[in-house]
Amino acid sequence: MVKKAGVLGATGSVGQRFILLLSQHAEFEIHALGASSRSAGKAYKDAVNWKQADILPKTAQDVIVQECAPEGNFAECDIVFSGLDSDVAGDIEKAFVDAGLAVISNAKNYRREKDVPLVVPIVNPEHIDIVENKVKKAKAEGKQTGFLICISNCSTAGLVAPLKPLVDKFGPIDALTATTLQAISGAGFSPGVAGMDILDNIVPYISGEEDKLEWETKKILGSVNKEGTEVVNIPEDEMKVSAQCNRVPVIDGHTECISFRFAQRPPPSVAELKQALSQYVCDASKLGCHSAPKQTIHVLEQEDRPQPRLDRERDNGYGVSVGRVREDSLLDFKMVVLSHNTIIGAAGSGILIAEILKARGLI
Amino acid sequence: MVKKAGVLGATGSVGQRFILLLSQHAEFEIHALGASSRSAGKAYKDAVNWKQADILPKTAQDVIVQECAPEGNFAECDIVFSGLDSDVAGDIEKAFVDAGLAVISNAKNYRREKDVPLVVPIVNPEHIDIVENKVKKAKAEGKQTGFLICISNCSTAGLVAPLKPLVDKFGPIDALTATTLQAISGAGFSPGVAGMDILDNIVPYISGEEDKLEWETKKILGSVNKEGTEVVNIPEDEMKVSAQCNRVPVIDGHTECISFRFAQRPPPSVAELKQALSQYVCDASKLGCHSAPKQTIHVLEQEDRPQPRLDRERDNGYGVSVGRVREDSLLDFKMVVLSHNTIIGAAGSGILIAEILKARGLI
Amino acid sequence: MVKKAGVLGATGSVGQRFILLLSQHAEFEIHALGASSRSAGKAYKDAVNWKQADILPKTAQDVIVQECAPEGNFAECDIVFSGLDSDVAGDIEKAFVDAGLAVISNAKNYRREKDVPLVVPIVNPEHIDIVENKVKKAKAEGKQTGFLICISNCSTAGLVAPLKPLVDKFGPIDALTATTLQAISGAGFSPGVAGMDILDNIVPYISGEEDKLEWETKKILGSVNKEGTEVVNIPEDEMKVSAQCNRVPVIDGHTECISFRFAQRPPPSVAELKQALSQYVCDASKLGCHSAPKQTIHVLEQEDRPQPRLDRERDNGYGVSVGRVREDSLLDFKMVVLSHNTIIGAAGSGILIAEILKARGLI
Amino acid sequence: MVKKAGVLGATGSVGQRFILLLSQHAEFEIHALGASSRSAGKAYKDAVNWKQADILPKTAQDVIVQECAPEGNFAECDIVFSGLDSDVAGDIEKAFVDAGLAVISNAKNYRREKDVPLVVPIVNPEHIDIVENKVKKAKAEGKQTGFLICISNCSTAGLVAPLKPLVDKFGPIDALTATTLQAISGAGFSPGVAGMDILDNIVPYISGEEDKLEWETKKILGSVNKEGTEVVNIPEDEMKVSAQCNRVPVIDGHTECISFRFAQRPPPSVAELKQALSQYVCDASKLGCHSAPKQTIHVLEQEDRPQPRLDRERDNGYGVSVGRVREDSLLDFKMVVLSHNTIIGAAGSGILIAEILKARGLI
Repeated sequence: MVKKAGVLGATGSVGQRFILLLSQHAEFEIHALGASSRSAGKAYKDAVNWKQADILPKTAQDVIVQECAPEGNFAECDIVFSGLDSDVAGDIEKAFVDAGLAVISNAKNYRREKDVPLVVPIVNPEHIDIVENKVKKAKAEGKQTGFLICISNCSTAGLVAPLKPLVDKFGPIDALTATTLQAISGAGFSPGVAGMDILDNIVPYISGEEDKLEWETKKILGSVNKEGTEVVNIPEDEMKVSAQCNRVPVIDGHTECISFRFAQRPPPSVAELKQALSQYVCDASKLGCHSAPKQTIHVLEQEDRPQPRLDRERDNGYGVSVGRVREDSLLDFKMVVLSHNTIIGAAGSGILIAEILKARGLI
Repeated sequence: MVKKAGVLGATGSVGQRFILLLSQHAEFEIHALGASSRSAGKAYKDAVNWKQADILPKTAQDVIVQECAPEGNFAECDIVFSGLDSDVAGDIEKAFVDAGLAVISNAKNYRREKDVPLVVPIVNPEHIDIVENKVKKAKAEGKQTGFLICISNCSTAGLVAPLKPLVDKFGPIDALTATTLQAISGAGFSPGVAGMDILDNIVPYISGEEDKLEWETKKILGSVNKEGTEVVNIPEDEMKVSAQCNRVPVIDGHTECISFRFAQRPPPSVAELKQALSQYVCDASKLGCHSAPKQTIHVLEQEDRPQPRLDRERDNGYGVSVGRVREDSLLDFKMVVLSHNTIIGAAGSGILIAEILKARGLI
Repeated sequence: MVKKAGVLGATGSVGQRFILLLSQHAEFEIHALGASSRSAGKAYKDAVNWKQADILPKTAQDVIVQECAPEGNFAECDIVFSGLDSDVAGDIEKAFVDAGLAVISNAKNYRREKDVPLVVPIVNPEHIDIVENKVKKAKAEGKQTGFLICISNCSTAGLVAPLKPLVDKFGPIDALTATTLQAISGAGFSPGVAGMDILDNIVPYISGEEDKLEWETKKILGSVNKEGTEVVNIPEDEMKVSAQCNRVPVIDGHTECISFRFAQRPPPSVAELKQALSQYVCDASKLGCHSAPKQTIHVLEQEDRPQPRLDRERDNGYGVSVGRVREDSLLDFKMVVLSHNTIIGAAGSGILIAEILKARGLI
Repeated sequence: MVKKAGVLGATGSVGQRFILLLSQHAEFEIHALGASSRSAGKAYKDAVNWKQADILPKTAQDVIVQECAPEGNFAECDIVFSGLDSDVAGDIEKAFVDAGLAVISNAKNYRREKDVPLVVPIVNPEHIDIVENKVKKAKAEGKQTGFLICISNCSTAGLVAPLKPLVDKFGPIDALTATTLQAISGAGFSPGVAGMDILDNIVPYISGEEDKLEWETKKILGSVNKEGTEVVNIPEDEMKVSAQCNRVPVIDGHTECISFRFAQRPPPSVAELKQALSQYVCDASKLGCHSAPKQTIHVLEQEDRPQPRLDRERDNGYGVSVGRVREDSLLDFKMVVLSHNTIIGAAGSGILIAEILKARGLI
């Protein structure tokens, strides 16, 4: 059955991508679009400054934009995707969850909450157990409950994708460095990154990004507690993560040069590492989710790959590419990771999380 | 007195920059230009595909190009700058030195030779002592001797510039990571980096670059032996260096995200680090060399600097910029370094080395 | 029935795109790949430096590359696509046609031959009548004949696409100016346009391009003679075309700022112009060709469109976008045209021509 | 004697460039800086988000920013440069002139006023006669008068520079087309052109630009009336100008592909055209103005020049480059013009106009 989907922050950069992905999706239909009071009451096509390469989908263009409240069409939604800015996301998302709605958010506001799963769908869908438990418990009590799932930061998504199969197979990583070369689409477009700042240039700073990369990794690679109610992060002293984040003149696709060390001695070989990466099949694929990548991690053997322009579209942007896997003189290994920041790193992840929720009967 | 200068590989990318810098220089005059037999015999302006923003200097345009042999005008040169490709530099540079000429080379062929100084002029001009001793010895024997000094790799030059004052003040660095974002001018222009490879893209690989960055650092930060005849590199096990090199869509200016640890415990504070960097005055400045930077290391306090387009021209490209100096969770510190790859990282370094040689009476 | 296809110049830029398009095509299968003797005998995957965003197709990777002669697998091909460089295309393509093969070429060598149709498949497929007549005549004589069809220059294809419906409806255009902003993919990639030439830069010159744009327009918009054997170009004095061609830092998609005047007075209105463009349905669409655009000409109303990054993929690159249609103070009208140079401007056109040939029973 | 200079809109893009140029200027000193009330009262270094490659000049950093009123330090200024946005420039500039101050403005508000000269200093400084007459008249009446001179639009400045010597020598041009490829620095930087809009892209529209190019050309090439009080534009029907304006991914330097026809028959030859361009010496040079170009128009003979990255800095950005001068099949000639949009097209022009005023004793 087709599920009714709502989009909060529908006119923004992330909201537009939610709409684009939903419009082409067999399992969801656009039912409610929310934006600021300036846009409310207008047809979507009149409210939005559409900036995607694909044409504004017909199924969205005449939808009347609502304010972002859990009323009207939103009240009928099976799932609500939030592309809200963090300065307003806090209150609005809370209101939606309190009203019993299922919300998947790209905003950072609730990512640190222990009972809110922070999910990269090709990495840690098992954290959704917390939601399942909450839903079951409510049902057992004859009630219905809303819930919130957070999408991770874009650069974190790319980073943890290849780490997951490695940690699963070879045990904990206790030291990790990541220097990122991040695409400008990650910053949205009004104004986003100014042309004068990025043409023939690098900006070696993205506000808040290094901190997110460092702590989110420890939550996403963490585990659910015994009660099934909270995520337990990897303790600070068990995993040192050091990030350096840069904005580069690339439209889409975050490149990350990483190095890492396993706690366990001796570490695996490069060949074993590559094999673990290549053989990894994410749960979303096993569940048969429509957007799940056929190949979760692509291990590229050419010495000059992955490259954002050539490799970002692997598996429609849901696959992550890894190249230059080699030993490191300081830690154990170093390699280059490439992920599509607006797909697996943002709106696309939200869609795949929703597919998992549907496959698991949670929406 | 104005010194006679020759340029080998005069039509190439590095050669053109040598010519440009020499043409504006009060202490040198262009006396000989050498290129392949295809160009030999032609006026320089007819042999070259001039690709610099500044117009082809008048003092070069009518110079008749010679073949690259230590004869004709080259025999009269006080100093010869080599911008030759490594596939031909070996034999030609040897012939020039054997003929008693003073050669400063940008090629990689002799960089690993223990009795050939590998010099970043704002970092280790003291390695020129080897040359001075060789010249003095020859003179004592009533002979004259040629000699060779190598310019370092461009990304190495930027890296070691801020490390030098830190090592001088706080002792050895035993671990270092460097992820580079290198400009395309470093690859020359025929063909250099293809537009299709670098527009909206990153290439996470530069042939041979990581290896150069890792070992050259240990030679440049190494010391001259007691006899004054050879450079003693920092031993492998005393300094671990790990590099990851990327080509980015930037015309000029290499950005390097580095982290490092001092051997000595406890390490200095961030404030002490910045002070040591800011107060550093390179020997070339003390010698009063014309091209020496007024400020060797610029410590930038803005959180989003240095940026290549805005900061690469500091001190005409002879100054190096450092920003985002902060503590690192894994090693001691991390920071961003920016240097002008065609000035302090290539031809410009050659000119400043020549100025030092002149100031020290070696040419 | 699936047709056997061969590709000449299979390792080059255009050849790679032919292979990519063929590998995804229901009506053609890759049967023969030809390249220089350096590549001949190797599996394609070992011969090629694959530079496309899509992965090297499985159906091509193990094909053994042949030399470019009408023998072996090429002799069995129903259609041969040529992506050869013009310095070798002349002799090779002639040999293929003489051997009775059907050849569609992207090279410029035979474009000016009167009995060789120069075809933009969404514009002048009626010029293929010449081929049909030749084939019928041979068949009537109990013989079989090879033939050649040329693909137009990329910037010409974009230009003539909107002109065709206008000329059809409003009569001849007697004056036309076109200033192009051409993407770098049009120059191939070995080396193609150097990064140093195009980053933060414009190159206001493309060798031979202006001449091609000026004369090809008069052939493509010309007519077939009564005998059905030759194309009659629009006479020089009936249509003045003036082109200025620039290379710009864009990966794919040629933008052309054009102005033009109709011979007939008074000229149509802007509204009539737009209507004629919007209503145009190319013959390839009427024939039901698989790659034919659903909408041949997209008339965009937003004042800042078309833009290459946003609009080049319309109808998989087979649709052409037009925007800013307005009156001109000097001629009658001016407008901006955008076309995908590697699809409708090169390999893609070749594929669509082959589909037309198949639909018309000529292969 | 050093003149006291004020800058209105001092924190903006154009204001910053005025300050940079003034700080390096022997004849002017920064005496007053004006910005919005948000900045007023702060030291300039604390009020500005400095975005220039050169470091914030010492002579500006501690100047206390005032509001934009003709009081305080502004009242003592010999000359005031306005980089104000057009939404506030109207009232403020009027107040300054009414207060008896000499104002040179980059804003568009008063450009169409007949008694306000619209000046490109290397083209039509003779229009300053209007100001001189006004000043003399006031002086004769024992009064003092303020006055306003407008700087032209950036793309107009580049266009008219080579037209002036041609019109001077060969008579009126009656038809002109110009397709521009304009750098992003022309749009300022907060936000200016968004990175997402310009990377791997062209925007074929700049609000109001085509109209400015078309009418400003007729004022700048127009003449002063007999009374010496107003500019008489070239009549509409004597000169048809058609412009198409594009934004391209270039930092600095506007490229314009133009074609034009002389009223007089027969037209001159290409050689005569080039000679007229090369021999042109602008009045500012004759007056010995410090910033005046040594060579006003550079005629480049290489077939692929001018290029913005290589040629924009000719004569410190005050020289204009012309290339590809050739006959046109539709009008008489076509050629490519390159000018530095922030120098001769904006702040730089303001400085040179002030130098002319000083040389003529008007400030």
